Amino acid sequence: MTLFRLLAAAVLCLIAIPAAAQTVAQAPSGSQIVATADSPSKVIHVDVTLSPEGRVGYIVSRQGKPVIAESRLGFLFTDAPQMLRNFKLAGQATRSFDQTWEEPWGEYRTIRDRYNELAVSFDETKWLKRRMTVVFRLFDDGIGFRYELPRAPDFTHANIADELTEFNVAEPGTAWWDEALEWNRAEYLYRRTPIDEVGVAQTPITFRTDSGLHLSIHEAALVDYSGMDLRRVHDNVFKAMLMPSSTGPKVSRGLPLATPWRVIMIAPDAPGLYKSAQIILNLNEPNKLGDVSWFKPMKYVGIWWEMHLDKSTWNSGPKHGATTANAKRYIDFAAKNGFGGVLVEGWNKGWDDDPDGNGWFAWGKDFSFTQPYPDFDLPAVAAYAHKKGVGLIGHHETAGNIANYEKQLIPALELYRRLGIHAVKTGYVADAGGIQALGADGKIHFEWHQGQVMVDHHLKVITEAAKRQIAVDAHEPVKDTGLRRTYPNWVSREGQRGMEYNAWGEPKNPPEHEANLVFTRMLSGPMDFTPGIVSLKGKDDTPILSTLAKQLALYVVIYSPIQMAADLPENYEANPKTFKFIKEVAVDWDDTRMLAGEVGDLAVFARKQRGAPTWFLGAVGDEQERHFDVALDFLDPGRRYRAEIYRDGADADYRTNPRAIVIEQRIVTARDRMAMRIAPGGGAAVRFVALDN
Amino acid sequence: MTLFRLLAAAVLCLIAIPAAAQTVAQAPSGSQIVATADSPSKVIHVDVTLSPEGRVGYIVSRQGKPVIAESRLGFLFTDAPQMLRNFKLAGQATRSFDQTWEEPWGEYRTIRDRYNELAVSFDETKWLKRRMTVVFRLFDDGIGFRYELPRAPDFTHANIADELTEFNVAEPGTAWWDEALEWNRAEYLYRRTPIDEVGVAQTPITFRTDSGLHLSIHEAALVDYSGMDLRRVHDNVFKAMLMPSSTGPKVSRGLPLATPWRVIMIAPDAPGLYKSAQIILNLNEPNKLGDVSWFKPMKYVGIWWEMHLDKSTWNSGPKHGATTANAKRYIDFAAKNGFGGVLVEGWNKGWDDDPDGNGWFAWGKDFSFTQPYPDFDLPAVAAYAHKKGVGLIGHHETAGNIANYEKQLIPALELYRRLGIHAVKTGYVADAGGIQALGADGKIHFEWHQGQVMVDHHLKVITEAAKRQIAVDAHEPVKDTGLRRTYPNWVSREGQRGMEYNAWGEPKNPPEHEANLVFTRMLSGPMDFTPGIVSLKGKDDTPILSTLAKQLALYVVIYSPIQMAADLPENYEANPKTFKFIKEVAVDWDDTRMLAGEVGDLAVFARKQRGAPTWFLGAVGDEQERHFDVALDFLDPGRRYRAEIYRDGADADYRTNPRAIVIEQRIVTARDRMAMRIAPGGGAAVRFVALDN
Repeated sequence: MTLFRLLAAAVLCLIAIPAAAQTVAQAPSGSQIVATADSPSKVIHVDVTLSPEGRVGYIVSRQGKPVIAESRLGFLFTDAPQMLRNFKLAGQATRSFDQTWEEPWGEYRTIRDRYNELAVSFDETKWLKRRMTVVFRLFDDGIGFRYELPRAPDFTHANIADELTEFNVAEPGTAWWDEALEWNRAEYLYRRTPIDEVGVAQTPITFRTDSGLHLSIHEAALVDYSGMDLRRVHDNVFKAMLMPSSTGPKVSRGLPLATPWRVIMIAPDAPGLYKSAQIILNLNEPNKLGDVSWFKPMKYVGIWWEMHLDKSTWNSGPKHGATTANAKRYIDFAAKNGFGGVLVEGWNKGWDDDPDGNGWFAWGKDFSFTQPYPDFDLPAVAAYAHKKGVGLIGHHETAGNIANYEKQLIPALELYRRLGIHAVKTGYVADAGGIQALGADGKIHFEWHQGQVMVDHHLKVITEAAKRQIAVDAHEPVKDTGLRRTYPNWVSREGQRGMEYNAWGEPKNPPEHEANLVFTRMLSGPMDFTPGIVSLKGKDDTPILSTLAKQLALYVVIYSPIQMAADLPENYEANPKTFKFIKEVAVDWDDTRMLAGEVGDLAVFARKQRGAPTWFLGAVGDEQERHFDVALDFLDPGRRYRAEIYRDGADADYRTNPRAIVIEQRIVTARDRMAMRIAPGGGAAVRFVALDN
Repeated sequence: MTLFRLLAAAVLCLIAIPAAAQTVAQAPSGSQIVATADSPSKVIHVDVTLSPEGRVGYIVSRQGKPVIAESRLGFLFTDAPQMLRNFKLAGQATRSFDQTWEEPWGEYRTIRDRYNELAVSFDETKWLKRRMTVVFRLFDDGIGFRYELPRAPDFTHANIADELTEFNVAEPGTAWWDEALEWNRAEYLYRRTPIDEVGVAQTPITFRTDSGLHLSIHEAALVDYSGMDLRRVHDNVFKAMLMPSSTGPKVSRGLPLATPWRVIMIAPDAPGLYKSAQIILNLNEPNKLGDVSWFKPMKYVGIWWEMHLDKSTWNSGPKHGATTANAKRYIDFAAKNGFGGVLVEGWNKGWDDDPDGNGWFAWGKDFSFTQPYPDFDLPAVAAYAHKKGVGLIGHHETAGNIANYEKQLIPALELYRRLGIHAVKTGYVADAGGIQALGADGKIHFEWHQGQVMVDHHLKVITEAAKRQIAVDAHEPVKDTGLRRTYPNWVSREGQRGMEYNAWGEPKNPPEHEANLVFTRMLSGPMDFTPGIVSLKGKDDTPILSTLAKQLALYVVIYSPIQMAADLPENYEANPKTFKFIKEVAVDWDDTRMLAGEVGDLAVFARKQRGAPTWFLGAVGDEQERHFDVALDFLDPGRRYRAEIYRDGADADYRTNPRAIVIEQRIVTARDRMAMRIAPGGGAAVRFVALDN
């Protein structure tokens, strides 16, 4: 399988323009505009500025209207003077690129990577006379830029204290954001506030300006660097806040270096914003792994939700969930219903060190990644799964103790390789001890989930796993920045509140949660949300704030190449009509279209199953009744489809009647429209089966 | 002179209350209230809370109304697990204190330090079982609290990654704040926004809630720790953001330790807020220096404004300002007009290393603190000053290069001691190189103005200077946290935009600037603002946004025990009538009353000259016309005073007629009122001379 076939030839041109030849224009601040560029269709424009005191800045506009007002660039270092002022223009170069590449798995079979590039170099006029190059890539639906610091005799290593990158949103509007707090985890409810009321936010952070423009700020290709949060410093001005380290510099790297791409997705509407997230992938390097056909997108079940319901435990003891017998029960269920994988959590020793008996709040020091508990016969279970045509999904919960995990990483992955296990769910719940890493001084250091140490750790796990044909689904992960393009075995991750919060969350995920996720977290990449709780019940039978139809819709709405059918087998057996959709829904796609959407309110997707004529529609709303009426023109013209519809009943409501569902069929064509009511807390799912005409 | 005479006996009681004896009440969050305390007159109340997961929090109310909603406490460490959850109450103790102490110099001769103290100890229930004690001091106009971490066998050194202290302002309102930005300097214009639009702010940050309550958050006794900025994380929730270090932990200290006090000043109105700043001093240790009568509060002139006007330079060369002849000219002027000191900047070698010839943007590596330029005969100038009865004020500009400064600190101070120089202005303009400090590894580290390294540096300078009877006026300083009580030779500092911005600022200080300063920066302590530009002209004759009367008012409004008459001698000689007030105004006070005030709009002060019956009134407004009508009941009853009034002329306006001033006299008594119009950009100054009846 040719993973990254070039479908169009790249067009490249490199032009070095002497600085003196530039026309000097002025920014509103009085800065000079020293370089400019347009996106291929001249939708997006960037001006690069130099202030009278030699500060470098940039301005982004869309169709002549400011999107990002003049925003400053630069660095602080722990062992060298700041790179901040006293710059002069040293040169610039432009380049155009147009290539279409193929995803081995994904939301789209092919993605077009089309941009104009502008690289502008600045030299300090005084003292160290260092160079800073800023490379802009202009797409028609957004912009990426990164810094490049070359190596020089006096400047061979960068100890970055902070990056001074600003994003000065040019227009008032509304922001959807989740804060960055002290647990240094990502699992917070989204907030919707005026832009100028944002506090300290994770990325992606999404804005809808008063004129209706949709923006999201994120980063791409976060490699050997520290993750970026954003703090609003005043007005609509956001500033990069790199995650800290235990050792001083937030980033410590040899030169030359290129930073991750700072990305601003820009679209006229919410569906356009969703699609613009292709930029994140385009700004990553092509596949470095070659053939990854050993990973097959799949649905899976597992020993997981029963622990969240407190029906069994991760810890050993009388309620231990990961027993041989229980695993075989799930394998049988998976085989019977066509699921590709079975996840088993809590199979390995080390969950018992919490005095309160809650392994999640462990220090992680006792975790063995190779020794099963006595009541779990790993080789026998693996053989049984193999016999049944089901793949086991391994589990490496570290409790954030990567010092302990890294010691065992190779034997742990080798064990899975030997057993034919091609996927592992990793976990970094660090609520007790924090991220514990082995420092260069041989001591344990406490680090941040999104800091350089963890960024490096994750990539180490990914590359070691890839060597052994193992795909990784990371929970409590570093944020997704599109590295799945480069390392397609990084198949999914968590990184926001998933379904588990509907078991025990205080509060549970509100009805708007998924309509928020689609336009924020999901712009970064796949999420292992673990949908499909058809019982609509969490722990102690507490209700989930969702209708039944919405649980089905989530398989289409929340993209992941591995999707869990998260509920208990007995709950699926008790709900065969809705379980049918879960069994049939695809997990890998040729194409994705958002048919209608408003951030936090509504998202209606159509996705075409990869390698099949079948389409799926998924729609989620929020706490209000929502309606949509969409054209089915994505279907093949002239073809008839049987639309198998799962929609909220007329009186459905997540508060009063969540189980009211209508399951019906209609014959439709591409010339039809489909109108539907989404109940409060509801959703809709449709399977379009192509019929022989 | 007895500096810290006890005027009232302290009343102490220590009560250890077993935890089990406490009544358990619930906070709105569901947390338990495990300890409570009231201020002496039961105005301020604190509840200390423990959440179900063992998080420690606090709630502050005033007269039964919430001021700070439940806010969390805790720590992150770089080499140990976070102190965040799993706490249980270990014990509590209360104590009452009432003492009146005397300031050797200041705004008040005596200050009453009256509080109830509540110390609450928590122990971790798991693993390390560390203790965290939080000590609250409740005053009737605010609260201070600090953490105490005891030493334990496994916990002998704290490497603090961050302090998790929150301040959750309970009510919406308006905030006055200046942001914390990458230059890591303090000199930004104040912003006025809704509380929930604050970004990242320095302290003090001041709030007026919708119900009219006035609050300000700051810190006291910042010693061997890192300074605290505040970031608003969401809604009205602010979180401590300790300043970084180059080496990882924001604070690294042996145990036991007590943090600086986190202070919330709370008052029903703006004048009450100003007075509540006494808490900052009360939370500092008493004078450790003993007799500091060698320091006399004074007014001074100096070779300074002429450089800001570009009439002369700090650098050597044909325009060098610090020449022997020029210094003698200023000494003559000071002696003739009764000024106590003459500042000479640019006297020492090292200002010439900037390629653009601007010594301020130097790296500081060439600064000698003992070698004068050849055109400046330091011993001769010092002798001449001594003969004329004037004290020289030395100057130690470091450009932030404390590695270079600390090497020379002792000889530099010894030089001043030998020459009888009792005051030095230090400076840390670090715009070129950043703060350069010598690390434990023998290398240069780049540090933050408010980080632990600089906090320690400043105190080193202060204590070494004190040994040599030298007072310090620090510019680009660490923030003031009341350490002048403990080290009364730390007489003043800059730490916000002073008059110099009216020479060359873009923009210049707006008319509201001083009415902002009074209720923010000035709550922290004295500011060497350098008022009195009677020419009303900056560089290139650009106008200052002030009336003439306001320049006089600033001497009363902006407190400092050293006050510069900052303008050129020739400008004073050309304005003898207004110069008269500057010559006569006091700099040391027996008492201070704010007669009227609104944050950012108006501040009217009456201050009584120390050791004399003379009172002064100073008033500043903002860009609007303001009026005040105040009772003169602060004057001695039954006594007659000659009020020498300097007020804006009827048609005065900072934009059109800034020099219009009325100078007039009236006889008044304590039964009179005084009504006055303050012009846009204006002010008023009055000297009340007690008459023999």
